[in-house]
Amino acid sequence: MAAYSQDTIMLFGDSITQGGWEPEKSGFGTRLAHVYARKLDVLNRGLSGYNTEWGIPVFEQVFAKKPEQAHAPKVRLLLIWFGANDACIPPSPQHVPLPKFTSNLKHILSLVRSPDSPYHSPETKIVLVTPPPVNTLQRGVDLHARDPPKELDRLFEVTETYAEAVRAVGVEAGEGVAVVDVFGALWERAGKDEASLSQYLSDGLHLNGKGYEIMYDELMQVIKDKFPELHPDNLRYNFARWDEIDWKNPAPTLQKRPIEIPK
Amino acid sequence: MAAYSQDTIMLFGDSITQGGWEPEKSGFGTRLAHVYARKLDVLNRGLSGYNTEWGIPVFEQVFAKKPEQAHAPKVRLLLIWFGANDACIPPSPQHVPLPKFTSNLKHILSLVRSPDSPYHSPETKIVLVTPPPVNTLQRGVDLHARDPPKELDRLFEVTETYAEAVRAVGVEAGEGVAVVDVFGALWERAGKDEASLSQYLSDGLHLNGKGYEIMYDELMQVIKDKFPELHPDNLRYNFARWDEIDWKNPAPTLQKRPIEIPK
Repeated sequence: MAAYSQDTIMLFGDSITQGGWEPEKSGFGTRLAHVYARKLDVLNRGLSGYNTEWGIPVFEQVFAKKPEQAHAPKVRLLLIWFGANDACIPPSPQHVPLPKFTSNLKHILSLVRSPDSPYHSPETKIVLVTPPPVNTLQRGVDLHARDPPKELDRLFEVTETYAEAVRAVGVEAGEGVAVVDVFGALWERAGKDEASLSQYLSDGLHLNGKGYEIMYDELMQVIKDKFPELHPDNLRYNFARWDEIDWKNPAPTLQKRPIEIPK
Repeated sequence: MAAYSQDTIMLFGDSITQGGWEPEKSGFGTRLAHVYARKLDVLNRGLSGYNTEWGIPVFEQVFAKKPEQAHAPKVRLLLIWFGANDACIPPSPQHVPLPKFTSNLKHILSLVRSPDSPYHSPETKIVLVTPPPVNTLQRGVDLHARDPPKELDRLFEVTETYAEAVRAVGVEAGEGVAVVDVFGALWERAGKDEASLSQYLSDGLHLNGKGYEIMYDELMQVIKDKFPELHPDNLRYNFARWDEIDWKNPAPTLQKRPIEIPK
């Protein structure tokens, strides 16, 4: 069936997820779509400007309920990448208090993992991603250059607590849930110097190409370590490579096959 | 539902389609996925090395049959981009004789457009894409450098006749079918000089980033002219922009909506 011949990887998050296909950035969406070609479809469910509070009602409309799952492509891997907007400081309408952010993340996990949930999908592996560190110098320049100029809406230390919350939810969730710590990875590479984050951020908030490359590498390592059965190297094309086709009698060799490599 | 909250654009073709997300090329797949984010999912159904003869049995397994269409995402736009392998010269197993290539293209069109077809999908608009011109100088160098060295497997003049066949099938098909003439666009830009095609081809056969950019621009122009209702500028997000959300009472403003902009 259309969009049904392949299972999927769903990328659910904010603008940093939505922007994962920006051509000039070679974002993580582009990279995933490339390495999973003919294996798994990569779906962009990024919502620019959204926080977890607004994301949940959308998730409940884009993730299949049990009766629908029979007809829908399986979501083999679900990325959940929020926090960059939840961490906005009041009076921003995007602000979600830290305890509520934590409970929202747990709620999304329970929607997929709880046997009582209408969205229960036991075969879906989950990766939680921490928000990137904010470069308030870079962000401040960007906001003050706007017309009218805007006040600083995010603080490094505040976003850091939201990143820590994501890590904690991931640890508590245990089996079937992994964490990609983008905050930690970029902060380390920047030598724990806020100004140096400009190497990885386009505007103090969003990742640039280099930032996405690091995020992608971290994600691939986590998949390899935690969910090796989903690593592209451990999957084959769902239709034969052309040199696997029987040129004399092609039809039997052109039947759809599982992407799992036979042992 | 998963992969069901958005209708789709299906890209069906050979390696030039499959490679449309190569990060270093910013291919047409990446560009489409970016501009159609939150509007239509872009599905990679490219099959490296395949010709139309092998592609048809796959198409019959990835395109929804009528009873399945109720559950499957609609394919709003179907790109069909073959010819680069069909045009291989004998004794290549990829070679498909020109008359057979033409009838195969017509068969794929009839699968989608004929009311008698089990795959009939009247709301699917179709774009036929011509194969790029071959730079036999560049291709020859690539093939001779292999171990063991390979003979030239494609000829400019032969591929040109396959491109012409695609144009002819498109003209004959009429309403609901458009043609993106990649062969003509690249040939013109190369000043009708085969060696100059290296500006747009990575190996004499496959598009490089510049080639994909030209292909993408041509495709966008064709969508604008022939299927304006599918141009991204004429579609809105299927979920509200964050500044359209009622922050005091979000739920009603977070309901999925048609991507068509209300008149």
